[in-house]
Amino acid sequence: MKLALCSDGGAPFWAVVDPEADAARPISGGIADWGPGVTRGEGEAALRFEGPARALSTLRLLAPCERTSKVVIAGANYSKHLVEFGVAAPAQPIAFLKAFGALIGANDPIRYPPLTEQLDYECELVVVIGTDEIDLDAPLACVLGYTAGNDVSARDLQRSGPPGIGMDLYAAKSQDRATPVGPWIVTRDEFPAGSPALRLSTTINGEVRQDGTTADMTWDVSELIRFVQARVSFGVGDLLFTGTPEGVGQGSGRYLNPGDLVEVVLEGVGALRNVVGPKTPT
Amino acid sequence: MKLALCSDGGAPFWAVVDPEADAARPISGGIADWGPGVTRGEGEAALRFEGPARALSTLRLLAPCERTSKVVIAGANYSKHLVEFGVAAPAQPIAFLKAFGALIGANDPIRYPPLTEQLDYECELVVVIGTDEIDLDAPLACVLGYTAGNDVSARDLQRSGPPGIGMDLYAAKSQDRATPVGPWIVTRDEFPAGSPALRLSTTINGEVRQDGTTADMTWDVSELIRFVQARVSFGVGDLLFTGTPEGVGQGSGRYLNPGDLVEVVLEGVGALRNVVGPKTPT
Repeated sequence: MKLALCSDGGAPFWAVVDPEADAARPISGGIADWGPGVTRGEGEAALRFEGPARALSTLRLLAPCERTSKVVIAGANYSKHLVEFGVAAPAQPIAFLKAFGALIGANDPIRYPPLTEQLDYECELVVVIGTDEIDLDAPLACVLGYTAGNDVSARDLQRSGPPGIGMDLYAAKSQDRATPVGPWIVTRDEFPAGSPALRLSTTINGEVRQDGTTADMTWDVSELIRFVQARVSFGVGDLLFTGTPEGVGQGSGRYLNPGDLVEVVLEGVGALRNVVGPKTPT
Repeated sequence: MKLALCSDGGAPFWAVVDPEADAARPISGGIADWGPGVTRGEGEAALRFEGPARALSTLRLLAPCERTSKVVIAGANYSKHLVEFGVAAPAQPIAFLKAFGALIGANDPIRYPPLTEQLDYECELVVVIGTDEIDLDAPLACVLGYTAGNDVSARDLQRSGPPGIGMDLYAAKSQDRATPVGPWIVTRDEFPAGSPALRLSTTINGEVRQDGTTADMTWDVSELIRFVQARVSFGVGDLLFTGTPEGVGQGSGRYLNPGDLVEVVLEGVGALRNVVGPKTPT
């Protein structure tokens, strides 16, 4: 099942979507209402459909995340990507928060933030948490499903953090309206059991820049959930970005430019297609 | 005017409070409804009172922050505190996010998180943003008011971040139900013009551990707002923690223990009195 957060210009609403049939069936309530039931495997029985079906192509796809949810980023999770930063493989991941205002949908323009000259891309598997209770012995049981993310990062700002304290990950990764997520959540039952092993890529204007697999993650989805949950509790609807493979602009020196079409494709989920907007004046 | 987020066991509500008269006058709506008007200086004319006055002493004071708001921490802002970390004075502050679930009210117990043996305190001036539009030429005009915060931090987890990436500020400072904020917002018109110069202290079981002034901040409130806003936009209701003076447990080796009474007092605002709870099992 594919669950999307949609807008027709009015209040956002969740819907079960079928892209091939160009259909969106609106459901009532928020992710806290139906997320736990879907996560337990109840399927459509956990949903209450509301109103007539809509043509998916007439709707805007928003980031599948509600404003009250947390967005957690787990980094340093692909060893070859760390080489691009000159950082040694760490003993544990690093987790931090992204501001909700950073999120945009699958076809929205990426705002090119002020203060940076090094805007970069990062294709990522994004986990959607479906319950408030997390079983540390079976972390995948709390997963509602998966979606795709592009953790767009301002590298020069990332490096501007104070020595001894560390990277400025807030300035780098919480820039307003710069992080595409979506296009929808594909529920966990559509994937084989275990942590997903999915192909993951980024192309810029049709040229492949990242082409990896989530099987290469240093810490798999179970381990990341366990790591974060032991420190700060997850809740239903929270997103967990899981890191990016090698091939980002930080490694090649080839960053994003205004007008670039950035496509992130996650196997079994779908594509994010976002055009980089003009540079925002300081 | 003092604005508090209150609970009588039902849904939280905002109220204008008068602690000396033990009075709370409930107001309707959320901070987005009346915050901009109060920030513009309209006073009570910006509020719609709703229902009978209540005895303040019968209400629980919640952290004066709504779940949809951001909580931004600006660190490295008192030079003598940095000495306690062996960190050189940086060229700019560092900002990052705190999870909403970390916040507790002025009299709530501090949850002692698992995984840490070094739970520490940090008294802070907290700025409450009152508008969605920030004038970078006059940043204080966007300030609704000020409140007090205790940015409780797990120091051993803070140091556990990967070398080359930096401190694990999420694990250190977003622990569930560990960050007291309040007791209320005192509106900006009750303070002299300019960035506040207020005495700020922490006592543990009556012993003074921190005794500083916000006049010692390296970057004042205007500069911090400007720094953060240039990177990630503020919105009405967002909190901005502004750093802590010297005297924390990191410097002395004397950390918090279960049962400790931690009192943070901010001149012109009030006191946070929180008891540290038992250690949470891992």
